[in-house]
Amino acid sequence: MNMSKKYAIGIDLGGTNLRVALVSDEGEIVRKIKKPSTDQVISEMLEAIHEISCKDIAGIGLGVAGLIDRKNRGVFVSPNLRAIERIDIANEIQGRFNVPVFIENDANAAALGEKIGGAGRGFEHFVMLTLGTGIGGGIVYKGKLLEVSAEIGHMSINAEAEKCPCGNIGCLENYASARAMITRAINMLEKGSESLLKDCCKGNIYKLTPEDIYKAALDGDSLSRDILKEAGKYLGVGLANIINIMSPEAIILTGGLIGAWNIYVQEAIKEASRRAFRDLFDAVKIIPSSLGDNAGIVGAASLVFADASSSVSQYSQ
Amino acid sequence: MNMSKKYAIGIDLGGTNLRVALVSDEGEIVRKIKKPSTDQVISEMLEAIHEISCKDIAGIGLGVAGLIDRKNRGVFVSPNLRAIERIDIANEIQGRFNVPVFIENDANAAALGEKIGGAGRGFEHFVMLTLGTGIGGGIVYKGKLLEVSAEIGHMSINAEAEKCPCGNIGCLENYASARAMITRAINMLEKGSESLLKDCCKGNIYKLTPEDIYKAALDGDSLSRDILKEAGKYLGVGLANIINIMSPEAIILTGGLIGAWNIYVQEAIKEASRRAFRDLFDAVKIIPSSLGDNAGIVGAASLVFADASSSVSQYSQ
Repeated sequence: MNMSKKYAIGIDLGGTNLRVALVSDEGEIVRKIKKPSTDQVISEMLEAIHEISCKDIAGIGLGVAGLIDRKNRGVFVSPNLRAIERIDIANEIQGRFNVPVFIENDANAAALGEKIGGAGRGFEHFVMLTLGTGIGGGIVYKGKLLEVSAEIGHMSINAEAEKCPCGNIGCLENYASARAMITRAINMLEKGSESLLKDCCKGNIYKLTPEDIYKAALDGDSLSRDILKEAGKYLGVGLANIINIMSPEAIILTGGLIGAWNIYVQEAIKEASRRAFRDLFDAVKIIPSSLGDNAGIVGAASLVFADASSSVSQYSQ
Repeated sequence: MNMSKKYAIGIDLGGTNLRVALVSDEGEIVRKIKKPSTDQVISEMLEAIHEISCKDIAGIGLGVAGLIDRKNRGVFVSPNLRAIERIDIANEIQGRFNVPVFIENDANAAALGEKIGGAGRGFEHFVMLTLGTGIGGGIVYKGKLLEVSAEIGHMSINAEAEKCPCGNIGCLENYASARAMITRAINMLEKGSESLLKDCCKGNIYKLTPEDIYKAALDGDSLSRDILKEAGKYLGVGLANIINIMSPEAIILTGGLIGAWNIYVQEAIKEASRRAFRDLFDAVKIIPSSLGDNAGIVGAASLVFADASSSVSQYSQ
């Protein structure tokens, strides 16, 4: 890799949005394109790369919402981006733009982004959780991203429960994600529960968002408060498991749900404090991300600048 | 560290047994002492070090059944070895023998032992589980031990269940360990279940061992078979979680329970195959350890030979 090249393209290919940015080797975002992820996301991504690229970019880093096939530099499974599954995506991009291309899971890339330029800067060993529609994870150890699946949202916390679309049973994601909260709210409203939520979205409860639930909770709605607290409790079960297994210095939380920090995350911290080994819990800081939605693109770009020997690239010059 | 010193002392300080051995830098055990762990385990350990030591040992590596305090090189919590908790054990040994002393969790040390000279030799990234009275874990990544708690036995797999003595609820250990099997067998026998186990141990069901259960299962006893299969199923839940989070190349199993491989572990593998991400499951080999009880002492000794910069020692010469 030519180290005189100071810019890379970072891509965050999530189930909801596509973000493509030109990022400096210091993690500074120079230009950024954001679009909703559609069925044409691959061609839209290629266009965006063209549009945003400059001369002498050092490479392209791609963070994808899905299970990464590290050996073949592709994506095994991506429930919300079927178009990207089992195709030769990294080599395809590499062929077109003739620069090294690196691929990672989106939550892993976000963890790396927080390490480079966010809330993870002061820590050598932390776990990042992305709390949105689903739950993703990324682990930084000794200052570097662990190149593992880190599918923390698909850790079973209730061995005998409902099946998750991933194939596992009782996954953390089914209890503590935005989707879990919305599902529970709709179920309860359908059963006739009294709640301010009935008046949200012009009465169309199928359009409820986690923000609606949080707002209603702040307005004193007890159903909303219960839903946030229950999801938070289960998040706490997941946090305790992470603490007991990984003994991190910090857990960094990001994603839309951290807007409900005061109820949802506070409940999670309380539950984790009850469950995790006391000494490990006392040693961990549970904090919000500082890069927010930009963590993924910064982290993806930084894959390019990282030591090529410790990354997934097989590019040779 | 003086690299001309080719021998180190490896210590495996478990809840049941104390093992102290002189080990070569190639992982060969030259001499070994094994004693039951008693209340006097610390003085017995010091005596055994004296007895087994030779001139010019490079250092002492200590694997302890407990939660390691990496900062202070001690042990936070060790439910079966209370005498070793919160004392200055590494510095104490270092002061007496004037060689560098390294401390690790016993299952972590065993994982390292398997990497050095056992079933882990061919893998760069594996998870080790010790399946005995309790369940311990160790993680090797890029050929090196992850210096994390790895308390995989204290991962909750049933968020709303019985409290574990560790403080968490529904820990894997409460479902898949030898203690879990024995507890279930005694409960069922007390409730009057028909079983060959009633005739074990001269009718004293409180002396049952996992071996008794396995033998009875092989003799066609259905209660014993159910107990092994149920514990195996839960072990499979744990394996699936490990696979989804760590995407290892291998999971290496050790400890007394792997004697029941054909029923207990086979059931676990079947359950994990149902639950884990298909691509990750297909990529993992689930295999027995090859060093068995010696993995801990070999791994503990190898802490001494490992790059001092990546270990817990603060010894300087």
